[in-house]
Amino acid sequence: MRVGFLGVGIMGKQMVTTLLRKGVQVAVWNRSAEKCQELVAAGAKALPTPKAVVDECTVTHAMLSDPSASERVVFGSDGVLGAIRHGRSYIDHSTIDEMSGLKMADAIGEKGGRFLAAPVSGGWRDAAKGELLFICGGDKALFESQLEPGAGMAAMGARHWHVGSPADAARAKLMLQIMMGSMIGALAETLALTEKAGLDPGQVMDMFNSSAMANPISAAKGKLMADKTYYPPNFQIYLQQKDLRLALALADKLGMAAPIAATVNSQYVAARQQGLADADFAAVREVYSTSPLSKVS
Amino acid sequence: MRVGFLGVGIMGKQMVTTLLRKGVQVAVWNRSAEKCQELVAAGAKALPTPKAVVDECTVTHAMLSDPSASERVVFGSDGVLGAIRHGRSYIDHSTIDEMSGLKMADAIGEKGGRFLAAPVSGGWRDAAKGELLFICGGDKALFESQLEPGAGMAAMGARHWHVGSPADAARAKLMLQIMMGSMIGALAETLALTEKAGLDPGQVMDMFNSSAMANPISAAKGKLMADKTYYPPNFQIYLQQKDLRLALALADKLGMAAPIAATVNSQYVAARQQGLADADFAAVREVYSTSPLSKVS
Amino acid sequence: MRVGFLGVGIMGKQMVTTLLRKGVQVAVWNRSAEKCQELVAAGAKALPTPKAVVDECTVTHAMLSDPSASERVVFGSDGVLGAIRHGRSYIDHSTIDEMSGLKMADAIGEKGGRFLAAPVSGGWRDAAKGELLFICGGDKALFESQLEPGAGMAAMGARHWHVGSPADAARAKLMLQIMMGSMIGALAETLALTEKAGLDPGQVMDMFNSSAMANPISAAKGKLMADKTYYPPNFQIYLQQKDLRLALALADKLGMAAPIAATVNSQYVAARQQGLADADFAAVREVYSTSPLSKVS
Amino acid sequence: MRVGFLGVGIMGKQMVTTLLRKGVQVAVWNRSAEKCQELVAAGAKALPTPKAVVDECTVTHAMLSDPSASERVVFGSDGVLGAIRHGRSYIDHSTIDEMSGLKMADAIGEKGGRFLAAPVSGGWRDAAKGELLFICGGDKALFESQLEPGAGMAAMGARHWHVGSPADAARAKLMLQIMMGSMIGALAETLALTEKAGLDPGQVMDMFNSSAMANPISAAKGKLMADKTYYPPNFQIYLQQKDLRLALALADKLGMAAPIAATVNSQYVAARQQGLADADFAAVREVYSTSPLSKVS
Repeated sequence: MRVGFLGVGIMGKQMVTTLLRKGVQVAVWNRSAEKCQELVAAGAKALPTPKAVVDECTVTHAMLSDPSASERVVFGSDGVLGAIRHGRSYIDHSTIDEMSGLKMADAIGEKGGRFLAAPVSGGWRDAAKGELLFICGGDKALFESQLEPGAGMAAMGARHWHVGSPADAARAKLMLQIMMGSMIGALAETLALTEKAGLDPGQVMDMFNSSAMANPISAAKGKLMADKTYYPPNFQIYLQQKDLRLALALADKLGMAAPIAATVNSQYVAARQQGLADADFAAVREVYSTSPLSKVS
Repeated sequence: MRVGFLGVGIMGKQMVTTLLRKGVQVAVWNRSAEKCQELVAAGAKALPTPKAVVDECTVTHAMLSDPSASERVVFGSDGVLGAIRHGRSYIDHSTIDEMSGLKMADAIGEKGGRFLAAPVSGGWRDAAKGELLFICGGDKALFESQLEPGAGMAAMGARHWHVGSPADAARAKLMLQIMMGSMIGALAETLALTEKAGLDPGQVMDMFNSSAMANPISAAKGKLMADKTYYPPNFQIYLQQKDLRLALALADKLGMAAPIAATVNSQYVAARQQGLADADFAAVREVYSTSPLSKVS
Repeated sequence: MRVGFLGVGIMGKQMVTTLLRKGVQVAVWNRSAEKCQELVAAGAKALPTPKAVVDECTVTHAMLSDPSASERVVFGSDGVLGAIRHGRSYIDHSTIDEMSGLKMADAIGEKGGRFLAAPVSGGWRDAAKGELLFICGGDKALFESQLEPGAGMAAMGARHWHVGSPADAARAKLMLQIMMGSMIGALAETLALTEKAGLDPGQVMDMFNSSAMANPISAAKGKLMADKTYYPPNFQIYLQQKDLRLALALADKLGMAAPIAATVNSQYVAARQQGLADADFAAVREVYSTSPLSKVS
Repeated sequence: MRVGFLGVGIMGKQMVTTLLRKGVQVAVWNRSAEKCQELVAAGAKALPTPKAVVDECTVTHAMLSDPSASERVVFGSDGVLGAIRHGRSYIDHSTIDEMSGLKMADAIGEKGGRFLAAPVSGGWRDAAKGELLFICGGDKALFESQLEPGAGMAAMGARHWHVGSPADAARAKLMLQIMMGSMIGALAETLALTEKAGLDPGQVMDMFNSSAMANPISAAKGKLMADKTYYPPNFQIYLQQKDLRLALALADKLGMAAPIAATVNSQYVAARQQGLADADFAAVREVYSTSPLSKVS
């Protein structure tokens, strides 16, 4: 039985490649069909619609560009809902918001299918190595079956957590994003002050990387800041700021003050104000420059 | 020729022990002489005053509790200045501020001695393993001689940087402290929001520790926050807040806005306001509690 | 020809009373009909539905409790839309958000009627004196006709501005609310610091009231803070915080950093966190107390 | 008996003119003697040194440019201390910090003289009208004698407060300065957002000036922001920021979080960073501009 996969962009392609490499048979679909060719050459079978994939496969995974693409694939014509049924499961790895996740869960549940929201932490390199982190919410039995040897998520990921509902998975992902935005925002501020104080940012970065605070993402972003190389982006300013906005909305809804996230958010908004929305989020460093970087694309 | 060491508290004791273990002969002094006994049993020689140590040793290290102790040991009666001269060097590993460092450098230089401010990054465990990080400012030749095999700083540390003047060393250390305060402040805010959102902080911490943001200090402090175990402290709220205060004063002096550090600082001040000045700085988590922890000592 | 008026709560009642006192004939409707009795005794005519009021009156005003009440009165059964037509005008003085205003404008316009969003600045005392401020957006000709002697808005208000669309009126109102939240937030912080510094808050308030910063709202709220009298509220914490939330969402949408509003907002959220959502917004003062006030209702 | 007056700059000149107009005889001294000529023509007597003034007059007032000028006039050669004695009083109206005030109080007290720190709130126009506000700390009997008809402070001021020690007077003044910086900072942010939202800042300012928030300083600064006329300054960015820095240092010392003042302070530091240190503090508006104003002098 093949495993289905919808969406083979930068991330999806690596995830499917990993599945194939580990001997899993895969049926793929992508909005632009030509992106499937390379995978077909590597052994995948291409199908014409999301519906066809779900119809043929017991379990279908999806990795789409944003919540609206996720919804279109499920609710659109020839979409997931056209074939989902008892005995069919759907796992969305895209970053979807609380509402989208719950809406999909309801619609799929009504048809007798099973749903898991399983957003990932990690980039395409982790996908290529089968070392993604999966933050899952929804059908618990489906989650557990995916941990077994040979299952799709077991093949693609290093760690898997079940945190509750699809909305909970979205929230847990946000928690990591607050930390990421704050760490890199604070790093930008520190390196700006370092430079202004006449110290060598590269040397201070070296100290940081030797300390108990050392971590891969700070090391990578600190380097981008030093080089002022913000294009092509790994993760854009506007996406990082969107996550902080959602986190602050959540805090507001829960009645909890989050002054650090609020201030960090202001810095990413200021970066957008400088025309850096599409730059890598390390470009928050430029908010501290007296002679701002021009937008480059 | 023995190496001198002034101040054998928690850190100093481990540093001397490492020196002895590596075959370096050491002469020690401590304000409370009884603290030297264990080290004498391990092979060190105790001397009655800082002056006696400097008189006997070519290079004397110091690890004292605060800037005023550092100044007293240098400028006080029977102090370092009483014996320092051409052919004698003094290296202070204490966290001293810009002014103290420059003042010592001037006074020691006038007597013909050499001075290095060499504050450390790392705790007593790193000291015990000889894996401290040394952030140095002052006499460059003295610095370089300390990197050679058998030299004190080579024996005690894993990495050594020369950043400029003693004031520069103090500033570079501050840069690391802004990062540390910000990372742990953001972690506290995130874990508080995690809990309020009905998620499991332990699970989110596990995700964080598996991600590209993973780092030892956050893992350790996240655990303290989960357990609400803030005593005995590794590094106190009041010390972390003092460093943020100094960093903000530096930013102000340099005419640079540092809004993230300013907001983070407010949270550590709020922790002091709740009576947590002497708790581990992970206790900044309690600022987000609706039912604040009582002070425990 | 009578002027219509929907909603005779605390504000609406004073507005109608002012109209009657100035010789304007009024037809009123209220969800709880008994609230109309006093106004009927004073000369108003009560009608059973919003539709009946709009049907009988050339111009109908509304002052309702919140956006959902505003929408219900327009779109609900026996609502404004049932009678609005060419030759009929509708003016909503409630605080409505951008979307609600535009939605009403469209629906009323389609029926051939005229619409003006005209939120007010001022409280019931200003309403009783006919000295409200009207911030208007929508039909310009309707606005201008309301400035003429004898017209409803002329009778009820001291100043009238036309700022553009109904959405613009909502936004302009928000601008005043950011200022109000910030001024009172800063006042709370200042008076807390005053007290902590051992100074007399009453004396400092007296200085403030004698200075070029003196203004009625700060004087009034400063007094409430001194007396810790936050109930009954004039304007609640949760409403002030809602306006700051909307303002921050607007700033985010426009790509503009608003760090002061963001920090002030955090303080009002913290007040909600302390259980003060329904207190007067002067209660933001309690966020600075080490022994927080218990919720009183 | 003449009243002494040291320092006849912009403020001092108007204060002396007011004294003369009300029939008070005055002896003046100024570092640049030629500034005294106009006052001598108006009836004042010029003396060559601070000491000479204090020697001749029972009560001497001072209005100097900064704390160091205040200290020089008291402690310098031919200074106040050379003549102060039992029966002589000294009142400093300059903005002096806590330490300077206490130091002068001690030195003058030891000589048997009386001292009052009496910083003012108000500008040269208020000085010209005799409507200054005096915030006083120090000798209570001296303060009370100054309230009597014919006394210097009674002639020059509209209101007078005794708040405690000279340090308390400095602190009380700071409280007003936090409010001023915060109100104008929030106004800048609001007007920037107003403009970005496509609204007319002049119209929103008109609403503000008609509301319960209306106050002279906001009206004046709002106009400067609209006109982008920041030179010549009434009160500079660097002075407003200095007061916020001192207020934050005080809050830190007292262990009180002051997040609003901290964020507002960041905006004034950012204005300095843009080269606007010497502009009127209304220029904090430019921090929100995407195309920053060039420094003009």
